[in-house]
Amino acid sequence: MATKPSISKGTRDFSSVEIAKRNYLKNILQITFEEYGFSPIETPSFEKLETLTGVYGDEGDRLVFKILNSGEKIKRADISAYNNGENHKFIKSISEKALRYDLTVPFARYVVQHQNELTFPFRRYQIQPVWRADRPQRGRFQEFIQCDADIVGNRSLWQEVEVLHLYDRIFNKLRIKDVNLRINHRNILEAIITIFEDKSRIYDFTVTLDKLNKIGKKEVFKELIGKNFHSKLLDIIEKIFGLQDNFQNQIKFLKPLFTNNQKGLEGISELEFITNSFKLCSSDSVVLKFDFSLARGLNYYTGMIVEADSPKNINIGSIGGGGRYDNLTNVFGMDEMSGVGVSFGFERIFLVMDQLGLFPDNLSYSTKVLFINFGDSAAEIAYSYMMKLRDKNVSSELYPTAAKLNKQLAYANSKGIKSVILMGSNEIRKKVFELKDMDSGKQTTYSLSKLINLF
Amino acid sequence: MATKPSISKGTRDFSSVEIAKRNYLKNILQITFEEYGFSPIETPSFEKLETLTGVYGDEGDRLVFKILNSGEKIKRADISAYNNGENHKFIKSISEKALRYDLTVPFARYVVQHQNELTFPFRRYQIQPVWRADRPQRGRFQEFIQCDADIVGNRSLWQEVEVLHLYDRIFNKLRIKDVNLRINHRNILEAIITIFEDKSRIYDFTVTLDKLNKIGKKEVFKELIGKNFHSKLLDIIEKIFGLQDNFQNQIKFLKPLFTNNQKGLEGISELEFITNSFKLCSSDSVVLKFDFSLARGLNYYTGMIVEADSPKNINIGSIGGGGRYDNLTNVFGMDEMSGVGVSFGFERIFLVMDQLGLFPDNLSYSTKVLFINFGDSAAEIAYSYMMKLRDKNVSSELYPTAAKLNKQLAYANSKGIKSVILMGSNEIRKKVFELKDMDSGKQTTYSLSKLINLF
Repeated sequence: MATKPSISKGTRDFSSVEIAKRNYLKNILQITFEEYGFSPIETPSFEKLETLTGVYGDEGDRLVFKILNSGEKIKRADISAYNNGENHKFIKSISEKALRYDLTVPFARYVVQHQNELTFPFRRYQIQPVWRADRPQRGRFQEFIQCDADIVGNRSLWQEVEVLHLYDRIFNKLRIKDVNLRINHRNILEAIITIFEDKSRIYDFTVTLDKLNKIGKKEVFKELIGKNFHSKLLDIIEKIFGLQDNFQNQIKFLKPLFTNNQKGLEGISELEFITNSFKLCSSDSVVLKFDFSLARGLNYYTGMIVEADSPKNINIGSIGGGGRYDNLTNVFGMDEMSGVGVSFGFERIFLVMDQLGLFPDNLSYSTKVLFINFGDSAAEIAYSYMMKLRDKNVSSELYPTAAKLNKQLAYANSKGIKSVILMGSNEIRKKVFELKDMDSGKQTTYSLSKLINLF
Repeated sequence: MATKPSISKGTRDFSSVEIAKRNYLKNILQITFEEYGFSPIETPSFEKLETLTGVYGDEGDRLVFKILNSGEKIKRADISAYNNGENHKFIKSISEKALRYDLTVPFARYVVQHQNELTFPFRRYQIQPVWRADRPQRGRFQEFIQCDADIVGNRSLWQEVEVLHLYDRIFNKLRIKDVNLRINHRNILEAIITIFEDKSRIYDFTVTLDKLNKIGKKEVFKELIGKNFHSKLLDIIEKIFGLQDNFQNQIKFLKPLFTNNQKGLEGISELEFITNSFKLCSSDSVVLKFDFSLARGLNYYTGMIVEADSPKNINIGSIGGGGRYDNLTNVFGMDEMSGVGVSFGFERIFLVMDQLGLFPDNLSYSTKVLFINFGDSAAEIAYSYMMKLRDKNVSSELYPTAAKLNKQLAYANSKGIKSVILMGSNEIRKKVFELKDMDSGKQTTYSLSKLINLF
């Protein structure tokens, strides 16, 4: 292998500068989750293939990275399945494991497997990488961090309030302002549909509605008409759109329409409770909005739905989302595990912060102090002082060889080391040292006895 | 999937209690590396298959987890290779990526790929999971943490001293005492061999020598005789063993034997420098010993070799190791990249600490304060006080429903929450709250205005 090596497409190396930023973001997420009583769990990087198959849909099944069986097992490949074009069967014959595709399914598996050890309502957060065989492209990676917080085992609406506050508090700490937090309720969508249509048309309806931000109101209506939705339904939608951004007026308009629909009224009153309780203690980093067009993952969510948009000047789409679900664990044979959860789009939030210059300037893993090396006998003394600095948690190094001073100073410069200590045999005899400030270039003489307390 | 789900063999879920301990260990490693001027890097979980093939030997090639190509690419399986039993060729036709097997090869790849961005000598640490298709067994996992620190791009012996001090300082901070740090030097092994044998026999020689701890001195000699090693060589070894644990005497004995072997004398003088410099500032958590029988990875190491043994009362073998190498990056076409590095056996050190009870008792992600829920209107007030506690970084929760008090207290107990705040409509009217200490059961009344400063 003589050519310069490279990494696999869609993956990234991280230098210490990048890690410092990523850890800054990660730490704020962790600390806030913990303030809110969430505790961390971690699940393995790979799970049994059967755990991760058939739960993400056909597209998901294709994007899950499968791990090849090792050793003798590879010899059990089902070649006739391969020849018949039965890809799934062929894959199953040579693979038993797959890489984590999201954090939801492993979390569901965790809750069922450890149900007897957990205290419910169970609040957990999880920040781990996931892997997807997406075609790599700008800003899209095959390995990236996901970050989820969930409360499961209880239907109290206070928990919806809690997860909305997580967004508010975390974006506030990160100094990301003006995040639209759009909420909706599954029941409201359903109630509107069932005034004039069969309930089953909700999916067809929301598929179109969901395109609002992409294609605009006009095209949405064209599509709904094309799908033969009732003209009176379209009138209602037209009116709700007209009341945009005013939750009170939207509610006032919807309530009379739902007089015969108990679930619809429940949806409204749930959003009212959530909105009022949220506003009691919000920090104004987010703007909570009712958005009737929001319809994420209706197969999964059963109550409130939420989505966090990136700030207006940054065109990056959603930076988080979640909602109330009732069937987290059904696929693993455990019914009625209701919960509410939110995701933070770690990689996108990172981009937002980078673009807005929200990372503090002083993030760095740089060494603080470099001791110049003037040859072994002086270096020995320098080394012992350096060890004392390290005992005080001051990150320090001794240059490894007695190279020319310029070379040693260049090393300090290149690594961003701010303080350089010069301590040759002359200085040591006089019991002093020189401290060079690399920013100003200024050099000051101090008594050796002062060295440890100077930093 | 009606059966209770489970994880793949050789992998682990981690609860927050386990994560608290693992993070305690991880933080001490990180902080100490940073005190020593090492900064973190991270490499992707998977690399190109070609990067990870042919570098770990046949056994390694077998144990590297390969990732199955996805999408249409799976249709390019080389079935004739499969039918001819050409496993490697077959695998290459369906896999282009593999999971990280260790941190050394990705680090070498990183150094070559980013050589123009790095400042040499380059000090990096890396703490990331690796994956191996080992047969899972007690204490052996297919996913586990590795932890490496290296300094590359310079041959100064001060760097050997640095990495030995890392062991000393880290074991000291973890309160692991009496770790034997056994060192040897490649040149010394080679010099001894070449007095009576051809240099090429060093591998044959050290394979046997390496078994000393397992099979004992008698069996080692039997094997060396069986391999026809010169009887005078065996005499020398016998004598060195007799001088065990006394570096000065061992050196005194070896020096005259090496009069015609410059490299042997260099090896001795290097170990003398390293030993003397190390002892200037060691904390006595480790005992540095010359061990002539130590011969780890001779294909790789070219100077000092080191191995850290677990404390005597814990029979778990090596908890770390490393040494000086000259050819880190040769495989990627970059010559003469010398460096010195050490590994910390994260999972084994964890076991040592667990067995010795060295994890602090107070490690936990538990919520500190639970607010009892007395129904929505009182809960609203409680919620606003709770939010103020959270602003002060006090981890707090409101019980989500107005369940019976006993149930809410049981929740606090089960989660290890120490402080419970009772604030019903009566208390709120009187502007007081009750604080229940869950350890003592004692309940005290305070003025509401005191709540925030109490924690």
